[in-house]
Amino acid sequence: MRAGFYQFAPALGEPEQNLKKITDALSGCEADLAVLPELALTGYVFNDRQEVLDLAETVPGKSAEKLAELAVKKKMTIVTGFAEKSGSAVYNSALLFTPEGQIRTYRKNHLFHEEKLFFTPGDLGFPVFNVKGVKIGLLVCFDHLFPEAARTLALQGAQVICHPSNLVLTGKAQVTTRSRSMENRIFWILANRFGTETNGDKSLTFSGCSQITDPDGRIMVQAGGFEEGFFAVDINPALADDKSVTPLCALFQDRRTDIYLL
Amino acid sequence: MRAGFYQFAPALGEPEQNLKKITDALSGCEADLAVLPELALTGYVFNDRQEVLDLAETVPGKSAEKLAELAVKKKMTIVTGFAEKSGSAVYNSALLFTPEGQIRTYRKNHLFHEEKLFFTPGDLGFPVFNVKGVKIGLLVCFDHLFPEAARTLALQGAQVICHPSNLVLTGKAQVTTRSRSMENRIFWILANRFGTETNGDKSLTFSGCSQITDPDGRIMVQAGGFEEGFFAVDINPALADDKSVTPLCALFQDRRTDIYLL
Repeated sequence: MRAGFYQFAPALGEPEQNLKKITDALSGCEADLAVLPELALTGYVFNDRQEVLDLAETVPGKSAEKLAELAVKKKMTIVTGFAEKSGSAVYNSALLFTPEGQIRTYRKNHLFHEEKLFFTPGDLGFPVFNVKGVKIGLLVCFDHLFPEAARTLALQGAQVICHPSNLVLTGKAQVTTRSRSMENRIFWILANRFGTETNGDKSLTFSGCSQITDPDGRIMVQAGGFEEGFFAVDINPALADDKSVTPLCALFQDRRTDIYLL
Repeated sequence: MRAGFYQFAPALGEPEQNLKKITDALSGCEADLAVLPELALTGYVFNDRQEVLDLAETVPGKSAEKLAELAVKKKMTIVTGFAEKSGSAVYNSALLFTPEGQIRTYRKNHLFHEEKLFFTPGDLGFPVFNVKGVKIGLLVCFDHLFPEAARTLALQGAQVICHPSNLVLTGKAQVTTRSRSMENRIFWILANRFGTETNGDKSLTFSGCSQITDPDGRIMVQAGGFEEGFFAVDINPALADDKSVTPLCALFQDRRTDIYLL
């Protein structure tokens, strides 16, 4: 399968503009799986919870339906970060749109910094979605720093982890996610954004360098720090089912669950 | 404190020669903590279990006592990989020698490849040793690939992980151990060997590139792939007690133990 990410700089508070940009970019590319950054429709730098509430949408809802249509039209699985309204809560979610028009939801479990003021922590665990035989797990940005998250997905059979992100530090998640690929023998699609976002006195610059790693931890493709574009590689998700490190070592069987204190 | 590693190429089946090399190297350096490679006294490439049994030693025992004397004389904590005989078992151990002459033992819990034919899996869990107020955890080589191992040590308060290794692959453990440093906010001393070891038809080339990383995952020092020498840096182990990622995020408090499936 052809798997990729679209690295771009979403505009704060402009979901329609961002959705058009995404639609234009994905319409022009051939891929089976496309991953977008965290909160790709709304932007990230908020001053208060009301700003998030004003931009967040339900699932299904207007933007989700448009992305679902795009996925069906392109026969593509699309994963995007999404500010998801549900009742009085807002989640920092990742949505997965199947080529059949279904929508799957993951809600970020490890909220970063001021996200804790704006969003509700995830309440859906770490689900693995089977899309046309490919087992996909979703994580959002800061989740990468907790090895338990990727482990929980991999132990449930995830072959590919799609990881919408809005990373500000350079070269951290590129290391941890290579490690996650190796320690779980899985593919990892880190879709980061780039660009500077300013809202009143607050400003953040995001670090780009999105990348895809294979079960050996090799970087298959990496974008630049300031580069807009869709980047894709051919991957064989079934390779992630082989957890052998050597003929005598199998990654999950060799775990010493009898003595871990976790 | 001054912490370092001695990267060298142990000679197979020559414990006295290796011990002399180690003693000469450590006698000439000033450090509070020195870490040596895995199985630093015996070498690594064995053809059968009897070869290991013939070289393994008890703890305490002849070689362990000499290292304990060296640690006392140099007022230094020394960590080394060690083929440890205990009853009918042989463990791929890491020994820690305190400046007061005490010996602490860790037995490798994740045995790699043919080590499974020669050694007994560790039966001492993942102990943390308090040496003059510094909390030290020990891991051996392949343990690095299992994030649960370092996590178990860090959750028990380990500030510094000493990691005797005989790595053959290049650039794998250098990534995972950077990740372990970041994801646990700890110091990590990866002491690898270099050189080619041949025993009959078997031959392995080890990859050097030992390194020390800080709680931000920065590489403080790294040796070359074919370089012999003692490399050291100043570290402040107390920095590892601060698990803050931001003022609103604390690494261990933010763990979602309610939903991990491990």
